[in-house]
Amino acid sequence: MNAEIVAVGTELLLGFTVNTDTVFLGRVLASLGIDCYHQVTVGDNRRRLAETLEAALARSDGVITCGGLGPTVDDVTLETIAQVTGRPLVLHRPTLRRIKERFARLKIQMPRSNLRQAMVPKGAVVFPNEVGTAPGFLLRVPLRQAQGERTVQRATSVCGEPVEPRTKLLVALPGPPSELIPMVERRLISRLKRFTGKAVIRSRTLKVTGLTESEVDRKVADLLRLKGSVTVGIYAHPSQVDLRITAKAGAPAEADRLIAQVEVKLRRRLKELIFGADDETLESVVGPLLRRRKLTLSVAESCTGGLVQHRITEIPGSSDYLLGGIVAYANELKSGPLAVSSELLRKYGAVSSQVAKAMAIGVRRLTRSDLGVGITGIAGPTGGSSKKPVGLVYIALATQKGVKNHRYLFTGERSIVKWKASQAALDLLRRYLEFLSQMSSSRKRGSSSTRIPAFAGMTMGFMKPAPVRTKKGQTP
Amino acid sequence: MNAEIVAVGTELLLGFTVNTDTVFLGRVLASLGIDCYHQVTVGDNRRRLAETLEAALARSDGVITCGGLGPTVDDVTLETIAQVTGRPLVLHRPTLRRIKERFARLKIQMPRSNLRQAMVPKGAVVFPNEVGTAPGFLLRVPLRQAQGERTVQRATSVCGEPVEPRTKLLVALPGPPSELIPMVERRLISRLKRFTGKAVIRSRTLKVTGLTESEVDRKVADLLRLKGSVTVGIYAHPSQVDLRITAKAGAPAEADRLIAQVEVKLRRRLKELIFGADDETLESVVGPLLRRRKLTLSVAESCTGGLVQHRITEIPGSSDYLLGGIVAYANELKSGPLAVSSELLRKYGAVSSQVAKAMAIGVRRLTRSDLGVGITGIAGPTGGSSKKPVGLVYIALATQKGVKNHRYLFTGERSIVKWKASQAALDLLRRYLEFLSQMSSSRKRGSSSTRIPAFAGMTMGFMKPAPVRTKKGQTP
Repeated sequence: MNAEIVAVGTELLLGFTVNTDTVFLGRVLASLGIDCYHQVTVGDNRRRLAETLEAALARSDGVITCGGLGPTVDDVTLETIAQVTGRPLVLHRPTLRRIKERFARLKIQMPRSNLRQAMVPKGAVVFPNEVGTAPGFLLRVPLRQAQGERTVQRATSVCGEPVEPRTKLLVALPGPPSELIPMVERRLISRLKRFTGKAVIRSRTLKVTGLTESEVDRKVADLLRLKGSVTVGIYAHPSQVDLRITAKAGAPAEADRLIAQVEVKLRRRLKELIFGADDETLESVVGPLLRRRKLTLSVAESCTGGLVQHRITEIPGSSDYLLGGIVAYANELKSGPLAVSSELLRKYGAVSSQVAKAMAIGVRRLTRSDLGVGITGIAGPTGGSSKKPVGLVYIALATQKGVKNHRYLFTGERSIVKWKASQAALDLLRRYLEFLSQMSSSRKRGSSSTRIPAFAGMTMGFMKPAPVRTKKGQTP
Repeated sequence: MNAEIVAVGTELLLGFTVNTDTVFLGRVLASLGIDCYHQVTVGDNRRRLAETLEAALARSDGVITCGGLGPTVDDVTLETIAQVTGRPLVLHRPTLRRIKERFARLKIQMPRSNLRQAMVPKGAVVFPNEVGTAPGFLLRVPLRQAQGERTVQRATSVCGEPVEPRTKLLVALPGPPSELIPMVERRLISRLKRFTGKAVIRSRTLKVTGLTESEVDRKVADLLRLKGSVTVGIYAHPSQVDLRITAKAGAPAEADRLIAQVEVKLRRRLKELIFGADDETLESVVGPLLRRRKLTLSVAESCTGGLVQHRITEIPGSSDYLLGGIVAYANELKSGPLAVSSELLRKYGAVSSQVAKAMAIGVRRLTRSDLGVGITGIAGPTGGSSKKPVGLVYIALATQKGVKNHRYLFTGERSIVKWKASQAALDLLRRYLEFLSQMSSSRKRGSSSTRIPAFAGMTMGFMKPAPVRTKKGQTP
């Protein structure tokens, strides 16, 4: 089976709203193995919507509309579907009851315009809207001879319940993602499963940090050129490169097997540069690593202005390991609670490896945490000099055994520099924690590497964390 | 003139990539007054792309494709345009030179596949690619009789250089936004200006916080129902409602005049609930207010985990007014540097108005700032109780003259609660600073209201900042 998505809304054409419904529906169809060959956006205009629906019903087995089901006269999807399919609109009593109850609950007089939202084309399977007022629905449309005779043979036979080959599916969904997404997940997917095609498309994304896109490209160039049932795409973000493996196969398990084969190869090439997969972020990966080792963390941030702690606290349960810290924007906060000596600040400047180290030590001491991170740098756009340019950032990690500084030079505007510095700080933590885990597991196995002290290992275990890094003890 | 956008790429259909090119091009066309009635996405498939281009050329005066110009065999846009328009592909020597130079600079042997990118349809106006390899181009396509006879009369006559009515414009652009955007801005817009329609569409967005969408709706319902050349749309975000005024007029100045008329009405209804317009954010508004009054700020954050300070430091030059602060996730950081008494923490709990106030006072004292903000609450998903549910947040503002607490109950998941609390904290600051400005300007005018002490005014000047708020001194 194939399906076409028709998004309705003038605001989409004007670029006022990003069409996330289509993105979501595209993923849903791909995950079900339903081919999607066309996505169309039209405005709130009956003639053009009718033409679009007719063309879509002619060439595709299924058509999914989103948007234009609201209560205002602008919303023309319902009437246009009725016109194109020749189905009269009939009152759907359960929906009317639901809408009335909703307004009663909100203690608002129901506007007459909302009555229209209780109408559906005759014969429709109604999807109740659990969030808003407009219901969605599914119609089986018998194909008229005049329509798309050429494409009729593409209508697949269907596993399970057989479908008359000249019947097309027409689904209408409300536009707001908060209404559309639960309706698709709770009502539509189970119905579409009956029409699932012979091939499913599945994907998995591996996330890399510490290398640029072209550095990653060079390491996996041959895999990026794979053709056929499994392919790899590369997508660059600030301080992060995503590698998406996509497989098309007859069954989910077969697709997963193809993906796993390529994943093994990618991991072999990129090793610890891969920090996570799919929805994982550096903060979602660092959290469990800290929890598993029962370590607490504190952070002293200057140029990142609280971003590192904000990211860490996005993860539920982060109070288990994050004690908190200082946003030391003014020097008084560095010399006060963090006890960075004013001599250090005067001699080396606030942006220096010495101050980063003192901040990490200071915040660790202040909070009595196991690990302390200190970050100081120049986010820009002003404040840089030839010796200390915009984008220069020092990040230090203090542990029980000592403190180690890393120097970075990031490109980009202010918020990008902040973001890249937060990526680097979280990645530094991740690598240290992963190194500790490796140490303790090799210790358990009685390997000879047990003699390497954990903190010395911090240096050895690290790959190049960013474009520029000074050697230990070197003054930048 | 009208134009249709055709995005090419299987990754778009699968929902792997969000189609930002179409959003960008939609805005560009609207700003030029060129109508856009259709946006279509097709995969990397020659037959379907050819069908789509033929239909688009038949019904629209101009067609803009984006994507599918890359060097791989997947990229079929160039060949398909050549096929549909009947133009042979010819070598464009300046492009070949450019591509060769690019590879020489990168010290990479040019793959043979990149040679293809130096080919363009005969007669095309070439747009050099200053970022990547694939050039864009513009073609004038004489319409064949067979194509879209019905729509020919819609081709407008053009101001300036006259255009043969049966000629259509076909523009091809590379897919990566980093290549497409500069090409559109530097090459395409100036050419499209000659085809600018009789009407321009312009818009302005007013940003509201402190009311829900339905509360805003109730205040401006009549304006939301405006029809004709100027309309108002409402768009809800967490703790923020945007009102977008859109005007269509013969000239930009006329559109701006229409917008200004409606803006005055909206501002009269919503007053200080409107915190900014267009690209402004609460943090970008608060910064200049602090700078103008030469006030410094510090923040003690618990449940927001650094988000408020992160947002403030997104603004260049924020070190002028933000001294920094504490992320007091653990109670030790509240009782330590913030000097919140352990009796207070024990008696009322960390999430209480008393502790919020003590945090605000504490961070103000620690940093010697003019203003101190204290935030404590339960971001969830766990940690709530029947007395103190998830979403309960206290925000206190300490000034030279005293401290005042506000109580909020936010809905949503963890990151939404954090975001809403940061919106509330920044809005509290904004309203206080705006109130100070009003006081001092009325003092200058010699108004009787000069007798109201600034800090008492904090209470009076404030509109309801969020769903739930306790009265002064009340224990929640």
